Amino acid sequence: MAMNHAKYVLGIDFGTFNGQAILARVSDGAVVASDVHYYSSGVITEKLPNGLGNSKLPSRFALQDPRDYLDVLKNAIPAVLQQSGVGPQDIIAIGTDFTSCTMLPVQTDGTPLCFMPKWRSNPHAWAKLWKHHSPQPQADRINEIGRRRGEEFLKRYGGRYSSEWFFAKLLETVEKAPEVYDAADEFIEASDWIVWQLVGRQRRGNCAAGYKAMWIKDRGGYPHYDFFKALHPKLEHVLDEKLGRLNIYPLATSAGGLSHRAAALTGLKEGTPVAVGTINAHAAVPACGVTEPGRLCMVLGPSICHMLLARERREVEGICGVVEDGILPGLWAYEAGQAAAGDILTWFCENAVPVSVHAEAERQGLSVAQWLERQSLGLRPGQNGLLALGWWNGNRSVLMDADLSGLLVGATLSTRPHEIFRALVEAVAFGTRKIVDAFTHAGLEINDLVAGGCLLEKCASLLQVFSDVTGRTIRVADSANTAALGAAMHAAVAAGKAAGGYGSLAEAARHMARVQAEVYRPHRAAHETYNQLYAEYERLHDYFGRGANPVMKALKRLRDSAA
Amino acid sequence: MAMNHAKYVLGIDFGTFNGQAILARVSDGAVVASDVHYYSSGVITEKLPNGLGNSKLPSRFALQDPRDYLDVLKNAIPAVLQQSGVGPQDIIAIGTDFTSCTMLPVQTDGTPLCFMPKWRSNPHAWAKLWKHHSPQPQADRINEIGRRRGEEFLKRYGGRYSSEWFFAKLLETVEKAPEVYDAADEFIEASDWIVWQLVGRQRRGNCAAGYKAMWIKDRGGYPHYDFFKALHPKLEHVLDEKLGRLNIYPLATSAGGLSHRAAALTGLKEGTPVAVGTINAHAAVPACGVTEPGRLCMVLGPSICHMLLARERREVEGICGVVEDGILPGLWAYEAGQAAAGDILTWFCENAVPVSVHAEAERQGLSVAQWLERQSLGLRPGQNGLLALGWWNGNRSVLMDADLSGLLVGATLSTRPHEIFRALVEAVAFGTRKIVDAFTHAGLEINDLVAGGCLLEKCASLLQVFSDVTGRTIRVADSANTAALGAAMHAAVAAGKAAGGYGSLAEAARHMARVQAEVYRPHRAAHETYNQLYAEYERLHDYFGRGANPVMKALKRLRDSAA
Repeated sequence: MAMNHAKYVLGIDFGTFNGQAILARVSDGAVVASDVHYYSSGVITEKLPNGLGNSKLPSRFALQDPRDYLDVLKNAIPAVLQQSGVGPQDIIAIGTDFTSCTMLPVQTDGTPLCFMPKWRSNPHAWAKLWKHHSPQPQADRINEIGRRRGEEFLKRYGGRYSSEWFFAKLLETVEKAPEVYDAADEFIEASDWIVWQLVGRQRRGNCAAGYKAMWIKDRGGYPHYDFFKALHPKLEHVLDEKLGRLNIYPLATSAGGLSHRAAALTGLKEGTPVAVGTINAHAAVPACGVTEPGRLCMVLGPSICHMLLARERREVEGICGVVEDGILPGLWAYEAGQAAAGDILTWFCENAVPVSVHAEAERQGLSVAQWLERQSLGLRPGQNGLLALGWWNGNRSVLMDADLSGLLVGATLSTRPHEIFRALVEAVAFGTRKIVDAFTHAGLEINDLVAGGCLLEKCASLLQVFSDVTGRTIRVADSANTAALGAAMHAAVAAGKAAGGYGSLAEAARHMARVQAEVYRPHRAAHETYNQLYAEYERLHDYFGRGANPVMKALKRLRDSAA
Repeated sequence: MAMNHAKYVLGIDFGTFNGQAILARVSDGAVVASDVHYYSSGVITEKLPNGLGNSKLPSRFALQDPRDYLDVLKNAIPAVLQQSGVGPQDIIAIGTDFTSCTMLPVQTDGTPLCFMPKWRSNPHAWAKLWKHHSPQPQADRINEIGRRRGEEFLKRYGGRYSSEWFFAKLLETVEKAPEVYDAADEFIEASDWIVWQLVGRQRRGNCAAGYKAMWIKDRGGYPHYDFFKALHPKLEHVLDEKLGRLNIYPLATSAGGLSHRAAALTGLKEGTPVAVGTINAHAAVPACGVTEPGRLCMVLGPSICHMLLARERREVEGICGVVEDGILPGLWAYEAGQAAAGDILTWFCENAVPVSVHAEAERQGLSVAQWLERQSLGLRPGQNGLLALGWWNGNRSVLMDADLSGLLVGATLSTRPHEIFRALVEAVAFGTRKIVDAFTHAGLEINDLVAGGCLLEKCASLLQVFSDVTGRTIRVADSANTAALGAAMHAAVAAGKAAGGYGSLAEAARHMARVQAEVYRPHRAAHETYNQLYAEYERLHDYFGRGANPVMKALKRLRDSAA
């Protein structure tokens, strides 16, 4: 066989509803095959599947079945092999990324507790998905105790630990299901668990540990055991008792070779290097070509993650986290976010688009979303007469308050659906500008933006609104799944130069990342009008978001007590 | 022929989109025939009909063709005669009511200027409908000059003269079309013009003059000519030059007998007494059985008029007007209002109800509005988690500000259409409570409410929300068209006792008005929850409505400059 034929890397992105495997050429990042496998149990919010645990799940629960993750390996990987015709020997490494914080209790050998008949009907034995929001009281207590003790992690997390994160979910299990806590040998991020399944040994990654589990590299790791004891007596030694050997491995390094068992499951070659696990949005950053400070990477999906690299650590209002080496070795990586973006537009399409729009879209041979996009882009800034606070799922950055809600002002009898749609897009863009401002006010320069993510497949042209609102140029990643491509790039670095890979993520990005030729540039007149609207937005943002008028919380309280 | 067979009165209600004639039995108010005639030109907002004046009408214009009013006489009256089999000799009088202020320029003989080829293509020669809102700058100047001069009419109009009213519209004509002003022999309310068409002579009524044209009975009539001169030099002698002989006639008296020409047009008997004209909402008050202080009459349609009778004159915040004898002789009559009610629900149904609701309604054999009504009534107060300011068409009372707009707060990803619908109904109910509060704070007692109007045909059960919000019992008028029945009652009084009619509107109401057996009573628990929501409503109402945050005006400005 010829020596110099192309080498490939496999990237697997574990999302909220499915896993996607792609096969990318190492030399240029071209995706030669791709397959999506949907989780058969999806997101479990009402009842456990198969008649287990008959009762309804508590409010705000969101679980998953780890079996679905294994099914992605078993189905999507053989599919891309077959689709591409690439042989296992030409795949130099495997990389994965995962939603986060998605975590689960397991036995010493990695078996999820929910696979065992004894625990299968206990909801706390299942994987708690990132959007499992029930541990808000636990998060509140973590914040209270953390503040009282002056814990450093609060500074790194913008002043607030989220109900979505690792120790909130774990504390919920201690309190609500102590028997599950006792029975678990470990609690582990799904991103680390899937790597364990591939290489047969545990290798926890620094990305999820840093962003979700209070692990601070420059402070020697996790908080002191006194802090955990203050949370709950059982947690005093949680680090030693339930977090494996506590070693944390840097991303884009090898966690080991593919195990015999995993090779049999997937059709890949035993011993193929597997990269340390990472978070999906964070993996997308180098895949968007962002490897230096000054360029904000936005991953647009149901929600938005904003990531920024910098040489220094600054205190930035309302960021989700800042982690040294969290995305690229040698740089501080900041994460901020908006709790809903595509989700708001989906909500609008499902709940507020009238029959007349469906008829008109059909007449023009467009989908409803396409029609709304086109019509709304025909409006000049300000022409809809509307302004919205896009807090349909609360506010992540910069207010970090899940109890805020959506607001629309300016409606008249002549307001039309596409005008509201435009206002919702603008609300999301204003939310992004607020994050840009938070970074720049903290002294972190942002010159331009790069966007990736699944929302762009539906309505990339809406980025013009983001450009006009932020006054910045926006480039678009040229990949249908930037996270999966990022995972593949992690693999290429984990494989190492000797095996035909790259010496660093920055080098991998230079070869494998691509942005589209089309660039969105701000129009001066539009930006000036948006400056006026943004001043109004900021005033509403502060009035409703910073406590002057807590009506949103009052409405949630009344709703909860009526229900 | 038998002497004692039943006597009838004819009531004709000229609404926004159509005119409705009813034939009512004098003895008990039973409606024996009814016919609706739609205006063929409807509301003219885009272009004059029949290719006249090719250019687009200015923004916020709303015109009508007086020919349509005559067509109501020509079509609806013969229709009710035929339908009922009642002979013209058994109709003892005719009464009319009209939208207001709807006004038009005419010649000495009553011919509308827009009937003349010379003026037909000039928009200012047409009837300016009540919702012709373009003369806002003129209204602003009237208010400014009125305030500077301490004019009494401002006190009677709650501190503000509206762009909808007579002299705002007339001043617009002077300024924008002086040639039309010069050519007109008179400017007249449509309610007075239609009576002129019936009796062949001009008889201006005290209701429209009092509520819309600054005529104050206890101050000797209209403002001084100095005031009009200050508005515009041409207006110095407007009262003498353009308002006929200035005599004002009390409502529920005879304006004269039906002319030969009108009798030929309608099939009625020449000489049949015709009552002086009046405003539609005001005519509805006795038809709802309200003839004494202490009971608030609400006429629910596209907008809401609230009317209250009292023995004394008080200063009430944000009322539209208070006129002595304006509704019932011997009492002060207060009018307040909400600029949109049914219009908001119609807007919602047309612009924001998704396909899924249509499918579900159809499955249950319901109209969309019925489905929304039922589903939304299934919610407990507070359960929707939403709160709205129902200013989709600005705010009439108590803020009197047409530039305010609608607001919705509390939306989440799980908010459903019927929950928004309920929030809009509640917003309208909160607006009514604000008006109730304004009256009671001024010392005018309100014990209970009576509702009439076309909105109730669609969704009377929503009155339970009004009852729970206001904490007051609500009765419902038992008539499909209370205004038309009120006009018929005016006729019965104008006919006089000798002709088989009544001596007063109060007496007519005792016999002819009817309320339904069903009464809406406030539920204590619901009222208490609504008190909490109302406190939140008031805070938003004052914040956005009283200048603390003028974002609604800023949005309108930006919209206007973008358009």
